[in-house]
Amino acid sequence: MPKKKAKGEPSLGDLLRVPEGERVDLSAYDSRAKPGAPDGKKAGTEATARMAAVLSDLQERLFAASTGGDRRRLLLVLQGMDTSGKGGTVKHVIGLFNPSGCRIKAFKAPTAEERGHPFLWRIAQALPQPGEIGIFDRSHYEDVLIARVRELAPRPQLGRRYGQINRFEKNLVEDGVTVVKCFLHIGYEEQRRRLLRRLDRPDKQWKFDPSDIAERTRWPAYQEAYELVLERCSTAWAPWYVVPADRKWYRNWAVSTLLKEHLEALDPQYPEAEFDVAACRERLLDGT
Amino acid sequence: MPKKKAKGEPSLGDLLRVPEGERVDLSAYDSRAKPGAPDGKKAGTEATARMAAVLSDLQERLFAASTGGDRRRLLLVLQGMDTSGKGGTVKHVIGLFNPSGCRIKAFKAPTAEERGHPFLWRIAQALPQPGEIGIFDRSHYEDVLIARVRELAPRPQLGRRYGQINRFEKNLVEDGVTVVKCFLHIGYEEQRRRLLRRLDRPDKQWKFDPSDIAERTRWPAYQEAYELVLERCSTAWAPWYVVPADRKWYRNWAVSTLLKEHLEALDPQYPEAEFDVAACRERLLDGT
Repeated sequence: MPKKKAKGEPSLGDLLRVPEGERVDLSAYDSRAKPGAPDGKKAGTEATARMAAVLSDLQERLFAASTGGDRRRLLLVLQGMDTSGKGGTVKHVIGLFNPSGCRIKAFKAPTAEERGHPFLWRIAQALPQPGEIGIFDRSHYEDVLIARVRELAPRPQLGRRYGQINRFEKNLVEDGVTVVKCFLHIGYEEQRRRLLRRLDRPDKQWKFDPSDIAERTRWPAYQEAYELVLERCSTAWAPWYVVPADRKWYRNWAVSTLLKEHLEALDPQYPEAEFDVAACRERLLDGT
Repeated sequence: MPKKKAKGEPSLGDLLRVPEGERVDLSAYDSRAKPGAPDGKKAGTEATARMAAVLSDLQERLFAASTGGDRRRLLLVLQGMDTSGKGGTVKHVIGLFNPSGCRIKAFKAPTAEERGHPFLWRIAQALPQPGEIGIFDRSHYEDVLIARVRELAPRPQLGRRYGQINRFEKNLVEDGVTVVKCFLHIGYEEQRRRLLRRLDRPDKQWKFDPSDIAERTRWPAYQEAYELVLERCSTAWAPWYVVPADRKWYRNWAVSTLLKEHLEALDPQYPEAEFDVAACRERLLDGT
């Protein structure tokens, strides 16, 4: 059994949160670290599996509450370099939940129609409904990441987007959305290993795109773009969490734990029946 | 280990399929039956859990194939009376898959916008994309079920819908969609037990709607409407399966097995790499 958290012991959120307004030097973040983790891979994997029942119970309560008018919901935003494990997180962490209450959206390069709208337009189409858990595999942050590195928009326009994102997220939070933003942080060498593994296994080659190599040559520019995101968009209402992601078991444990902490803080309640339970009971028993 | 299927032994699909054009008397179908099942609840539950790895492997192959241009996908249609376990099937069976490849749609009473379109319009919006597994919790069949029982459309219009559904599904199949339609068949007494259980548990009351009792008084009309659906819409290209659903473990095992049989028949293949693997390998190893 995991040891009971001592009173005043920091939550995982406290350990991984990027403080608002702080300068970020990603090279100072160890992508192999395991803050707050259980002791070792086996214990960590087991702890994640044990969370399944707790998480799906919290999810059911969140959904049940929405049927009583509670508008609250959760949005998990996953960002990270190629191979950082966004897809693996959806499989292993979101796989612990009831799929019917999850709304998953993987954002690709914007379509012609999407490019005709402001960059937050397609994001607003994909938000979770009350009671749901939304998952973004990539997100509006691509519009200040790849868009910055590849200069897909003029600099002044890019510069305004950070504030636009913060205001957009503030509105979400006021509408009852708990926004949990995770940057899956992997190292340059770990990415090399993972790309090589995709090449070496015939059942993984479909995940490989030769353009991944070209993107990889822009690694320093991407790290800098992420640093700006973490500095400018880790707000009091929607902070960023840096999740060390070289170890997959730690990444799964950490994201699961962050979701658990946020859902527990919401503490959703089953709504009370708004009908006469005893009368319904009687009618059911009376019917032939 | 489950015993190996003897050559020529019928598949579960063979056991549960409604033969095309055959008259259906639902009262002759035992909702507590367990055709083809493992021996008992424990063995059945374990067999379902063991299918998880096989199902998610087949699903990954289906998705991988789509990246190479394979348009095939699967659509699971779940229908059944209130409490028959459509939601439970999504939780326990679809929960075995990677959620990122599943597109789940629960159909409610049509909105004003949806009512302004032909009844198949909203269905066409919710179809799985190539490589995905789509799940309909209720479907276009509501338009010949509740719509018939509650007389929500003129009789001649209702009468035309069966043929319209068959043609719509034929087009889907020609476009690469494998349509697996499961009628979750529960008994009248079993529904009473399940409704009472919802009333008796404070954490289940939110699932109860007093109007469920009114619908229950129309049980015979619904059974008749289902019989017509099974008679008229169990086609060679998209047959109906009647899944006895009084036992939840059997229902989960049976739907999982039907999905496994259909995915195995598709036998999706990983696409071959369309790039020079050795050259990519070298570029990755060369980079600093």
